[in-house]
Parts: sequence; C-alpha cells; structure tokens
Amino acid sequence: MCNVAVIGVGSTPFGRHSDRTGRSLFADAASVALDDAGLTPDEVDALHYGNFIGALTERQGHQAPLMAEAVGTRAPATRHEQACASSGVAIHHAIQSIRAGSADVVLVGGMEKMSPLDTAETTEALATAADELHEVRPGMTFPGAYALMAQRYFDECGGTSEDLAHVAVKNHANALENEYAQFQRAITVADVLEAPRVASPLGLYDACPISDGASALVLAGEDVAPDAAYRITGTGLGTDALALQRRESLVETPATTDAARRALGMADRSIEEVDLLEVHDCFTIAEVLALEALGLYDRGEAAGAARRGETTAEGVMPVNLSGGLKAKGHPVGATGASQVVEVVKLLRGEHANSEAVPDATVGLAHNAGGTVASAAVHVVEER
Amino acid sequence: MCNVAVIGVGSTPFGRHSDRTGRSLFADAASVALDDAGLTPDEVDALHYGNFIGALTERQGHQAPLMAEAVGTRAPATRHEQACASSGVAIHHAIQSIRAGSADVVLVGGMEKMSPLDTAETTEALATAADELHEVRPGMTFPGAYALMAQRYFDECGGTSEDLAHVAVKNHANALENEYAQFQRAITVADVLEAPRVASPLGLYDACPISDGASALVLAGEDVAPDAAYRITGTGLGTDALALQRRESLVETPATTDAARRALGMADRSIEEVDLLEVHDCFTIAEVLALEALGLYDRGEAAGAARRGETTAEGVMPVNLSGGLKAKGHPVGATGASQVVEVVKLLRGEHANSEAVPDATVGLAHNAGGTVASAAVHVVEER
Repeated sequence: MCNVAVIGVGSTPFGRHSDRTGRSLFADAASVALDDAGLTPDEVDALHYGNFIGALTERQGHQAPLMAEAVGTRAPATRHEQACASSGVAIHHAIQSIRAGSADVVLVGGMEKMSPLDTAETTEALATAADELHEVRPGMTFPGAYALMAQRYFDECGGTSEDLAHVAVKNHANALENEYAQFQRAITVADVLEAPRVASPLGLYDACPISDGASALVLAGEDVAPDAAYRITGTGLGTDALALQRRESLVETPATTDAARRALGMADRSIEEVDLLEVHDCFTIAEVLALEALGLYDRGEAAGAARRGETTAEGVMPVNLSGGLKAKGHPVGATGASQVVEVVKLLRGEHANSEAVPDATVGLAHNAGGTVASAAVHVVEER
Repeated sequence: MCNVAVIGVGSTPFGRHSDRTGRSLFADAASVALDDAGLTPDEVDALHYGNFIGALTERQGHQAPLMAEAVGTRAPATRHEQACASSGVAIHHAIQSIRAGSADVVLVGGMEKMSPLDTAETTEALATAADELHEVRPGMTFPGAYALMAQRYFDECGGTSEDLAHVAVKNHANALENEYAQFQRAITVADVLEAPRVASPLGLYDACPISDGASALVLAGEDVAPDAAYRITGTGLGTDALALQRRESLVETPATTDAARRALGMADRSIEEVDLLEVHDCFTIAEVLALEALGLYDRGEAAGAARRGETTAEGVMPVNLSGGLKAKGHPVGATGASQVVEVVKLLRGEHANSEAVPDATVGLAHNAGGTVASAAVHVVEER
C-alpha cells in the first residue's frame, strides 16, 4: 500500500482571470496549500507541476522553474504534460518521488490559463491532445470526438440525451454552494435539451466550460507526517491508443480501468468501498463512461445513474460533489489536482457538500486526458 | 546510492528527417534500445518520454500515449517537459519509478522534430523556454541570451572568442567518426571566427544546429538485472530562476551545480573520479559555464580548456566525445537521453571514440534547459 499524507490543499476560484498571469494563479493556490500545511516554501523538497497548453496560450513552455520561482522555492521543479490529465499525472510522479526516498515534502499541482485564446483558438489548442495525423488533420475536435462516443453509446448501450442532461443538472446542483466553482447556477433538464448543439448529440450544457485556475497539494512521506489524517493510499495510471479509430471500442475506456485497477490494488480497496467519486466529466458522456470503466456499473447502466438519483448528492454514490469539470470548471492542467483537493475537503468535512457524505472515509479521483488515451486515478482515505 | 541498470540504448541519426513523423523517429530509437536489451515492447512496465516543442512543431501535445502506441506497449506512458532538459528529466523520473518499486523495466527517451518550422519559427518556439513576460516579449532570443552570458563572461572572467572557437573545433572533430552525428565535418578556428555573427560575440559556429532525432534507453531495477555491466549510480536535478535578469550572476549556473551535487552525492563520487563528460553545449559558452558549474574548473579557467587541449579527445578530461550538441546535433527533447546513450556506448567500447578513453569506467551527462534554469545530471558507471 501507498501511504503518502496530504497535509495541505489549495485552489484558486475557477473561472475567467484575464488580468492574471498563470504564474500568479499557481502561486496563489500553492500559497493556500502551504499555509494549510503550516509550511513555508523553503521546506519543500520538490515541485511537480502539471500544465497542458501553456506554450499555445501564454507562449510559455518550461513552466516548472517559473512556478518554483513564483512560489518561492529553489527545489527541483518539473513539469508533466498529459493533456487534461497533466496534474493527475503530476500527483502520481510526486508520490513516486516520495516513495523513491528522494523527497519528504512535495508541492504538487497544476495550472491552466485558457482565457488568452478565443473559443476557436482554444478548441484548436485542446485538439493537440488528439492524434494530429489521424484525427485533427481530417477535422476532428474534442466536442466532435465525444459526440461520436455518445452516439455510439446510445446505439450500442442505450441511453438518451435526457439521461445525459441529468448528469449536467446534477453537477450544476452540486456546484451551487462551492465558492470555487465557475458556475453557481442551477439548470434544468429542459435547459440542457434546448441548448444549442455543439456537436450532436451533445449540446452546450453537455460540455464543460473554458476556465482559468490553479490547484495545489502538499504531500509528505509517512516519516514526516506519521499521524496525518488524510492519505493517498493508491495511485495508478493507464494508457490507451491516442486516436479513437485505433481503439477496439468507442464506448470503453480501458485506460481508466487500468488506472483504477492499479490504484485500488495499491490501496487494497474495491471500488465498492469508495464513498465518493470525482470523475472526469469534460462532457456528460464522459462521466457515464468513467463510471462504467471504474467498475461501478455494467455497460449501458451508468447512463441513467444521475436520472435515477444514484449519483446525486443524496444518492448511494455521490459523483462530482464539487460540481465536476462541468460546473466547477476545467482549467485543463489544474483539473487533476483540483479533484484531489475537493476529495480531501469533502472528507475533512469542510466542503460545502460535506454534509451529503458525513460518514465518508474513502474517496476516489479520476482524471483523464484526451478521449481517455490517458488516465490517472487516486484513492484518498481518512485514517 | 542509486543502482539502476542500463540494459539497452538506441538512437536515430540526428539531422534533418523531413519525411518522417516524430512518432516513427521515436519508435526507431526505442526499437534499437529494446533489441539491444533483448526485450520486446510488452516487457516494458512504464514509458517516460521527453519532448519540448511538439505542440508548436507537429501541433501534437499528449505525445506519451502516441509514443507508447508507436513502440507497441500499453504500459503507463508519461511525458516530461523541461525545455532542452526534457529527456534528462524523463530519465530522472524513470529512475524514480524503479526506485519507488512501481516498475522493473522502463523505456525512457525523448524525441524532437524541429524541421516542420523554418529558422525564425524555430527560434520563436525555442524562446518558449525563456520567460515570456520578462525576456521574450522585450525581444530576447536564445542566441541573444547566451551572447549576453558570453560577453559578461569575457568581461568578468576573461576568455576570448578564440577560446570559444576551440570548443566548436573540438566538438566537430569529435563527431567526425560518429555516424549518428549531424555534422561529420572538421572545422578550423578561422572558420568559427570568420563565420557570420548570430548574436555578438557568438557566431554561426558557436551555436548548435536545428535537428530532428530521437534517443531511448531501457533501464532496469537491480532485481531484474543484478549483473548488468552499466548502471546509473546517481541522478540529480537543479532549478534556477527562469529569467536571466532574476539571477544573481550571468556567469554562474547554480542549477547545474545543484544537479551535479545531488547526482554525485547519490553516486558517492567526486567530479574528479569522472573519466568522461557529455555536457550541454547548445552554444560554445554553455560548455565553458557547465565545466565551471560542475566544479572541474575555477571561475574563468574553463574558457581556455579546449584551446589548451585539456578537454579534447587526447586531453586529461575528454568532453563531448560524441560531438556534443554542437556537432552531433540538438533535437531538443532527445538530447538528454542521447547524452546518456553516448556515455554508455563510450564506456562499452563500442563508440567510434571509445579508443580515446580505453580505461574509462565513470561518465557524467549534463543536460540543461533554457539558460540553465533547469539541469539534469546523471552518473553512469561500468561495474
């Protein structure tokens, strides 16, 4: 079992921060996390940082030393890029550096500043997560890719646009009291179904927004924080073919399954022992596919989960109590770290939605890249 | 001490590969490395991959799953980006994953395909390794940055353009028999001094070329390869402020010093015990700064090292027997891995220049990002 303490968490509000640099956003999140841990920047042994499209948005590569400087540390700093799973992967490598014995205290997180680009430019930038040769050059965009997956799901497994609409409605409802969320506004199933189509069958409310934001965590080895109340007990990654056309199925995401098997195996937990989930709902269909790939539902059964109330705040297995990418926002390089931050806050009882899960002690965060060519899963537990 | 076996190495020739995709270049290098190790792709537990400007050159982010597919593995694959130190950092994290106990056999390497852009576009893309806000926006380029460092070095520490010319002449001479090198052509001090200035005092022959290429290694834990003849015994990273103006000195590169201290400390070696060096000579002045930061020379003393014959193939401490970035070429994301590949070949006695170091058993590879805001150092030893 992995036994890495989470001793501090922090996020900026997600949304539009046009007047801020990326470095200042990350410094804010890191500062909150370090304060939460009761540490100063010079007590950090390493910085692991996730960012996806900074070279295209702020024309800034090589961001790790920049973020180290903004935070105020000279510790070795490295950037990990795995499309929208960048900071989930950063957490994985942060844990490895502790387990390898090369760091006791690690600052890990991610940031994305997407507002410098307009919507068309952002869509182009995000498409660098797909296979340029076989998908992007022929015209594919991410809304288009997930629309293909949704339509195939409807055809092969059943489910309807109304089912997906309930996912969006649930996640907006969950974000209502989350002050860090981009959208704190309730929507209805009719709103979702009547919204303009982005790529049929997906409409505007089936898609997460474009966001700026940063999230960070302070992790520590068990020698340093033996009595820490919150720990990451399992970490796992999964990899699949990048292009949809190279997959065996459009409705299965084995990278998620592999990452979850590794993370749950390390934590010595079954998925049934998990009390709450944050999953990668960049589109409503993505939440459905994730719940099935994680083993919570059989093929075709997760589509109706939100509609049936099983995954709502009041349900048997609350999913995306933070609001998810859909309503909390999706600054792509920050999302994976943000999910773990939200799980920790929910378990601590200091989240606006903690009262929905008063007895929860085990949470799982699922972060995906592209059309789930990459996945990172973390199991977080209260001692 | 770190004890990770290097059981396979491979590279493509460096140069211009306009007709090749990045993924096919990396697959070639990986295939050679796996064959060298006597392994098949499905025996790999993890892929660590370095790439810098792929989002700008091939419009391809999220390259790790793409490379895994090209190689033929479904193992967890992650990309590390640290400007021109990307694959040096990838090796560091590959070693961590072995030391953390999560992988026995790791494929690690890097690739860059720079030929899709013209020289001006490439210069712009490479400038994403500098601080966009404080350096690039006011007009700085990398040749300009290293020219500032060279001029300040001349002013503060002595040394001349002729001293630097000897670095270029030496590295071209070393590449003459290296079939993987981009330039296998001797040059003279007069050639260097009479070449057009790129950014005074640096001329065309003070700068490395623009290159395509890939390099890869297969690393294994000591349980899997207890009798391996070649091992990485030390790994270290260093981080400095990104912008030159935020540094205390233009002629000191403490990220290199920190990375070397960590790597040599882990290996329980002093720099004097090293028999051969591959250092990051993106510009001739960079080799000089590296030799001083590594502790081989006092401030101001390394400028004349090549001229005095101390770092030539016949010298007391051969530096860049591969030809270095200057003559072997510098496909930026591949360079760090390539340096370790070349060190291993030199120690094995199968390099064109191995005869220059017949008794060598300890090599050191130094990879830098930007104006050395990042550095990765590895110590490689023959058992």
